[in-house]
Amino acid sequence: MSNRYAFVGGSQGPWRVTEIRSVIGASLEPAERLEIVNSAVEFLPANSAWVLQSVVSNVRYAKRQELDTLRAVQPTLNRSEALTAVLIPIKKTAQWWALAQDERRAIFEEESHHTAVGLEYLPEVARQLHHCRDLGEPFDFLTWFEFAPEHTQAFDELLRRMRDTKEWDYVEREVEVWLHKASGRGL
Amino acid sequence: MSNRYAFVGGSQGPWRVTEIRSVIGASLEPAERLEIVNSAVEFLPANSAWVLQSVVSNVRYAKRQELDTLRAVQPTLNRSEALTAVLIPIKKTAQWWALAQDERRAIFEEESHHTAVGLEYLPEVARQLHHCRDLGEPFDFLTWFEFAPEHTQAFDELLRRMRDTKEWDYVEREVEVWLHKASGRGL
Repeated sequence: MSNRYAFVGGSQGPWRVTEIRSVIGASLEPAERLEIVNSAVEFLPANSAWVLQSVVSNVRYAKRQELDTLRAVQPTLNRSEALTAVLIPIKKTAQWWALAQDERRAIFEEESHHTAVGLEYLPEVARQLHHCRDLGEPFDFLTWFEFAPEHTQAFDELLRRMRDTKEWDYVEREVEVWLHKASGRGL
Repeated sequence: MSNRYAFVGGSQGPWRVTEIRSVIGASLEPAERLEIVNSAVEFLPANSAWVLQSVVSNVRYAKRQELDTLRAVQPTLNRSEALTAVLIPIKKTAQWWALAQDERRAIFEEESHHTAVGLEYLPEVARQLHHCRDLGEPFDFLTWFEFAPEHTQAFDELLRRMRDTKEWDYVEREVEVWLHKASGRGL
């Protein structure tokens, strides 16, 4: 299995796009459906509005104890009840990327409690982080969230809390792509 | 200027390959010259033996104080006296990449003194780190070293000291590509 992924917004795929909403900066073009491809995609597929490429990579900030805690409670993706998903592409500022590792870590966790806050919404809200900055993509990260529709309010609260942190001062573009699938099957 | 680079081993370029030597694992195919391209390269150029692609990215381990110390003494690339260069592609083990950030940092600096040891050879040995793991390349990093020929012995000592560290227990492939250029000009 490749660690490369491509999120194709267009007319195909198991996920129906219910809303595309800009949070900060430019939005994405409208699309009806989302297909997730587990490989690199060289060209924009026919009848598609956009493709966002990514790689699932090593952790950048989490300490051993945080990883162990997360892994003890985080659910797998593609649970049959997780019929709602939200893809959140984010781009951070040049100032963020010019920070040293200890400065980014301090803002990310000690000030913003990124891991700790996300943990409060586990196991309800499953999450997979994808990296794209080093691929030359328009966004730096894509975060994929998956949950049962009854946890939408909890998810909204999670977003509000994250966006209220110091870390988000360094976000210069953010889009929400809300998705729904009809049955418990899909990628 | 793009942050993407491609190191093309073949018959062209300002750098003459004087030796390609495997340190750990498989070597690279022989090549006469090295060309450095400041962009992504989709296909292996004609008359070339290999192409190694990379991206110059944000720091992964260095703390603010270390960055400031490094930046105060590190020279620019392409100094007229730096007629010797060594390209060192490295691949680390799956075990390394499965470590948490604090575990990798502890091995990298507190145990192996990666930054501190490199600092002792500045400003003589200029260095530029390139990342390639997330590009799906055969190596995880390419480190480019550049120095005047009279500092070859100091550079050899730097390599010996690095390879004697705990960090190098996690290196599963390493190659040295020794290069020389005839004049003080080139990329």
